[in-house]
Order: sequence, then structure tokens, then C-alpha cells
Amino acid sequence: MIQTDLLIIGAGPTGLFAVFEAGLLKIKCHLIDALPQIGGQLSELYPKKPIFDIPGYPEVLAGDLVTNLMEQIKQFQPGFTLGEKAEHIEKLEDGSFIVTTDAGTQHHAKAIAIAGGLGSFEPRKPVLENLEFYENKGVEYFVKNPEKFRDKKVVIAGGGDSALDWSIFLANVAEEVTLIHRRNEFRGALDSVEKVQELKNLGKIKLITPAEVAQLHGAEKLEAITIDENGSQRNIVCDYLIPLFGLTPKLGPIANWGLEIEKNAIKVNNALDYQTNIKGIYAIGDVNTYPGKLKLILCGFHEATLMCQSVYQILNPGKKYVMKYTTVSGIDGFDGSRKEAEKAVVKAID
Amino acid sequence: MIQTDLLIIGAGPTGLFAVFEAGLLKIKCHLIDALPQIGGQLSELYPKKPIFDIPGYPEVLAGDLVTNLMEQIKQFQPGFTLGEKAEHIEKLEDGSFIVTTDAGTQHHAKAIAIAGGLGSFEPRKPVLENLEFYENKGVEYFVKNPEKFRDKKVVIAGGGDSALDWSIFLANVAEEVTLIHRRNEFRGALDSVEKVQELKNLGKIKLITPAEVAQLHGAEKLEAITIDENGSQRNIVCDYLIPLFGLTPKLGPIANWGLEIEKNAIKVNNALDYQTNIKGIYAIGDVNTYPGKLKLILCGFHEATLMCQSVYQILNPGKKYVMKYTTVSGIDGFDGSRKEAEKAVVKAID
Repeated sequence: MIQTDLLIIGAGPTGLFAVFEAGLLKIKCHLIDALPQIGGQLSELYPKKPIFDIPGYPEVLAGDLVTNLMEQIKQFQPGFTLGEKAEHIEKLEDGSFIVTTDAGTQHHAKAIAIAGGLGSFEPRKPVLENLEFYENKGVEYFVKNPEKFRDKKVVIAGGGDSALDWSIFLANVAEEVTLIHRRNEFRGALDSVEKVQELKNLGKIKLITPAEVAQLHGAEKLEAITIDENGSQRNIVCDYLIPLFGLTPKLGPIANWGLEIEKNAIKVNNALDYQTNIKGIYAIGDVNTYPGKLKLILCGFHEATLMCQSVYQILNPGKKYVMKYTTVSGIDGFDGSRKEAEKAVVKAID
Repeated sequence: MIQTDLLIIGAGPTGLFAVFEAGLLKIKCHLIDALPQIGGQLSELYPKKPIFDIPGYPEVLAGDLVTNLMEQIKQFQPGFTLGEKAEHIEKLEDGSFIVTTDAGTQHHAKAIAIAGGLGSFEPRKPVLENLEFYENKGVEYFVKNPEKFRDKKVVIAGGGDSALDWSIFLANVAEEVTLIHRRNEFRGALDSVEKVQELKNLGKIKLITPAEVAQLHGAEKLEAITIDENGSQRNIVCDYLIPLFGLTPKLGPIANWGLEIEKNAIKVNNALDYQTNIKGIYAIGDVNTYPGKLKLILCGFHEATLMCQSVYQILNPGKKYVMKYTTVSGIDGFDGSRKEAEKAVVKAID
């Protein structure tokens, strides 16, 4: 069982920054995310796109913002459970919680912050007979660990950035990469489209367009697929099929935790601490709702900060916290590190 | 009379970022600040100190944060009234306001955002006979325009960063710079102390320590001062005396505007839009208070953002605003500029 003070569900920008504010209050954090990597939408949906409304950043690439947030929180040593979905919650008699993921990992914490963004991202699945039978037996919706595909025959289906980028990446890992798409045109960053063109010319990516996957084959696991090209069908031998048709966010199992839900978001007390109707469970960032709510990253940062003050009271009942400015007091990391402003010197001039 | 949509009182980080969020809503802004430069405390109190808790910045110098915020808002062309204190407010029948500064400058706006930080910074004054008579007649508490001191004889009094830095700066502007301090030791950045030592050795700064200003002389304006060195007195001929003994924040004239005040801060409705008890007047950043308030820059950013949505309703009654993400929709500046994410290409691979 993983033990922590504050369990944060969702490792997007709001969840990550919560680790920093918690750290200033000596609160240890662990994060769960359904995606295999940190960063939430920023990493999954638009890592290479600029954001213009992060205060103090005239422009920052979404992926760089995640990198900077990780750098900012690293001294507070957060734990991560990635690629698993928070599924079940149990409130113990002492007010603490046990959260179990779909993979069975258990987490025990005194407070919970749901920073789930628009929800957990569910892959859009192709309509194929026996699809579910082959899931985790050759059909994969995420590339969690590229090494899994080393020296294997991989078919990627899709026409957007994810399909392009993973085809490029796996071209140097897999034995064979076949990219199939139902149109001739791909939609993505110019760089990526050009790189796929180049790898195709070098024979490192096989391209089949326009084409669609029609059938899956294999007794125990995926061994081949049938594709349909303008009505004519043929088989391709492969170990893996990775359909990358985009993701849709779903609130998912959290919707059944007894929280007050409104328009697919969790109602919170925005007049104080962004706590939900269940004491000890907070919701911050895009996942919550209140009068005047804006789904902006900068609002999530503020909500995370006020939430941490409230969690401090749960962890330290009756203790008064006196806020200190980081510029004045510096930051003591859980790893023994210390960051502080250079002290003024006191020096005679002679 | 200066006309604007939203008049922001205070040009610190919260006031500056409000210009950005207002700009996204096509709201024009004008800012008033009692200090001669933008940036509020960040520029006046600790421009060279690192801040560690701006989300996404593991570390940023306060002065750099101001520079970045100015870069972020420049396309929205804010106006500035600097070095003047907002003194008087009048609410007109149509709900708009006229704000007049201590210099008599009038501003007409449909909504007011007070982003006054800890208040307007008042200089700590030395205890000297006839001090007030010489104010603006040779005694200056701020260096608003260094050119005023060109080829003049200037005495600076003080032992901190401001006294050191202005001595260094004016050494190349004034005819003569004398720095006097009641101790031999100066307290400031190592760089600054060493630079003053060097300029003193070169004869470009006269240093008198330990010493204090004892009297001011001059019939119409300042012509000389008497200083006291360990009980013995002597006169120094000078055109200007600049006492730099630090600043203390005061809420100032705003305290008399009929706003609900609690513990030297302005009460606002944090459950919705950070509006005060007077419709059309908002308070954001360190100047406001509400249950759970934290005086953090990142909280001011959030407050500014929600405030702007409410101001939009005042300016566009009944019109529904549909929020668009900057990453998706880009930003149209008032200067005709456009910032946007690079569009995905749609391209065939052959």
C-alpha cells in the first residue's frame, strides 16, 4: 500500500503545481494518472503548441510548461502511479482514504485532491469484431513503454499527430512499422509529416493509404489483421495494432464516488478551499465547477494553493500556519536541498 | 480627461496581468501608480531577488517577471499614469467613475480594479526641521527622472540597496554625488557595495560615514545641508537631498472611498468576481481580503481573470461571453498584431 499525506488524482499542470504548494507546507504528495506520462492534456493533446495565457509567459510550449513544473516540484519528491485509473475509494473511520486503481494498486492518504482535468482520457476505439478480446493481447491504445515493441511487427492506424509521431519514434525500435490511414492526407505538424515522408522513402515506414483495418486474427493473441483498400482486402502479419484515433475525456469511475456533480464537473466550495461535499476530498482545475468557473490553467494554480492550506488544517489540526514568502524564507526540499535568495551583504566601504 | 474601459489602480504584477485578461475580452485598460515605474513591490522592493512560487517558473527574478508581463500585455496597449496617487473618486449617474490623482489628472472609466498591493508606498522621512518646506524644492524621495539631477550637486542619504544603486547611477549624471550614512556598513547586494567602493576610490562618489543630516538651509529652495559626524557639524553645499530610508505601504486615500475595509485590506466577494461593496469597483491581489486569502502573486492572477469576466458583463450587458482558449483561437492585439499557434498542415504523403 502506497502511503502519502495528500493523494492527487491527475498529473496535469494543476496537480503538479499542487505538489509545490503542498511541499511548502511539508505535505507529501503522490499522484495517479490514467495516462502513461505526466502533464495531462498538455502532454497528450498539444505538447508542441504554444500557450499564451500563463501569467508571466508571453508564450510557452505546453510541453515546456510541464518540464518547468516538474523542475519546480522535484525537491518535494512526489510519487507517481502512472497508466492506472483511480477506480475505487473507501473512507476509513479515522477520516483517511484508500484509493484503488484499475490495476489494483492501493493508496492510503489523509486527503484527496481530484485534479482530473476534463476526466481520464479514453481512447476512441475502432469498430471491429472481437476488439476487446485482443486488447492487451496485441491491440494497444497507448505506447506506455516503447521497448515493448522492440523488434516486433507493428501496425499503427490513424492520421493525426500521435499516429505520425509514434510511427517516427517506433521506426527505429520495431522490426517493421506500417502506418495505415483512411485518407491520403495526414493532419499534423509540418515537421512530422515531412519526417514520415522521409522515413517512408528510406523504407523504414510502410505506408498504406487510403485503407482501414477490417478484421483481427489470432488464436491466443493478435497475429495478423485484414485491411480494406477501396474494397479490396489483404492480410498483414503483425504483433501489434496501435489504433490512434484520438482520446475523449470521461469523468469515469470518479462519477460514482458520491460527489456532487453538475454538468460533468465536481461542485466545490469556491468561497473557501475548493472542497467537495465530502470532507477531505477536494477538486481543483478543469474538473471542478462553481459560479463563474473558468477552465484555465492559471485558475487551477490558485485553487491548488488554497486547497493545500485547507489540507494543512486536516493534517495539523489546530495548528496555525503562518505564511512565509519564498523570496524571504527560501525553500527547503524533502531531499535536503535548499533554495534561497542571495542574502544582502553588510559591508563597510573604506 | 483620460478615457478607458477599465481603470486599474496599481501597476504591480496583478494589475499588469489584468490588462492581458481584459485584452482577451476587448476591454481597454489604463493604469495609475504612485511609484514612478511599473512593477509595484517587484520593481521597488526586490527587483534582483528570485521568486520561487510563480507557477511554471522554478525561479524568476522579480524584475524579470515584470519585464515578461509587460511583453505579454504590450499588444493590448495599456495607458499609464505613473508617479501619481489615485486620490478622489466620483461615481456618475450612468454608473461610470471619475478618478482624480494628487496631481489633478482625471480618468473616466466604466469599471475600476484596485490592484494596489499593500498600498501606495510612502517614503520614510527623516526628522528634520522645515523638511516639508523643502519637499519638491530640493528634497526628493524618489528619482522619477534622473535627468533632473544632471550636472547638479546631489546628496543621497541611506545605507540600503536604493541608496547604493542611485549613487552608482547618478555618479555619471550629477556634477557631484555625496553618499552619507549613519553607519560605516552598508546593507545591499555584494555587486552594489563593491561598485560604490570602486566609484569612491575613483573620486566619483564622496562618502561620509558615519554621519546624519542635521539641518536644511536655503531661502527659496535647498542650497545646503548641515551634517553631523560624531557630534561635529559641517555644511555641504548641494542642490538636492535624496533621503532613501525605505518605504512603508499605506492604503492611503482609497481608505476613504466608502469601501468595506478589514485589517487594512478591501473586502471582496471571493465567491464570484472579487467585486467590492460598491458595484463596478473590484479589488484584486494583495489589497483585498476574503476568507482564506493568501497574499500571493499567483492568487492575484486568478482574481484578475475572474474580475475581467465580471467587467465584461458591465461593458456588454446581457451579452454572453464564450471563452476561447488562446492556444486554439490565438490572440488579436489592439495594435493589429496577431499571435497564434502554428496550424497543423493537411498534406498527402506519396
